[in-house]
Amino acid sequence: MSGVKDLEPGARVRPEALRFGADGLIPAIVVDEEGQVLMLAYMDAEALSRTLRDGRTWYYSRSRRTYWAKGETSGAIQEVLAIRADCDGDALLVQVRQHAPGACHTGAWSCFMHPLVEGEA
Amino acid sequence: MSGVKDLEPGARVRPEALRFGADGLIPAIVVDEEGQVLMLAYMDAEALSRTLRDGRTWYYSRSRRTYWAKGETSGAIQEVLAIRADCDGDALLVQVRQHAPGACHTGAWSCFMHPLVEGEA
Repeated sequence: MSGVKDLEPGARVRPEALRFGADGLIPAIVVDEEGQVLMLAYMDAEALSRTLRDGRTWYYSRSRRTYWAKGETSGAIQEVLAIRADCDGDALLVQVRQHAPGACHTGAWSCFMHPLVEGEA
Repeated sequence: MSGVKDLEPGARVRPEALRFGADGLIPAIVVDEEGQVLMLAYMDAEALSRTLRDGRTWYYSRSRRTYWAKGETSGAIQEVLAIRADCDGDALLVQVRQHAPGACHTGAWSCFMHPLVEGEA
């Protein structure tokens, strides 16, 4: 991975300085206006570029190996409010205005609706 | 990847049913008691097992290729309050009681303190 090693506290970061993984991807944690975690998705440099260009989220689907404009078919688009990187520039936090019905393909607001339990689930 | 494909809304999930990546890892989004995103880290099955056993977070460091008991040297431990999986079981959301000074090795409460900007950073 190239790019920044450790960012100074509060330092801003340019897209080119992000540390994409060996697969060219960076994980993006998506939160709503209140900060609730909605989903985890992946961007490559092109998906991030499209996201910055359109002000709406684009991701890279690892299973389908294609770009994916979030909400294009469902209407559940995500307007980008802010993007932040973490201290070593290898993860993103994307705050969005989530449109109905929500971020999850199941129709739920958040994808993280499944308690982890030991023993019988 | 093995394990669950799509979970029913609200369904609970057992650790064995999670979909770890080809590298054996699953990303874990870590949030505090108020839900603020603190960091993104990775667990393998063993790190998750230790986390469940100890009630404190264990991660797998990709760069150091070793297990990492969060806060062991800094004191900034994370007591686990809840763990949830996402709809397809390939990401975790871990809610913790974060001890001072915070989750970031820089001493910040959250690692996500770096606004992404285009042009001059």
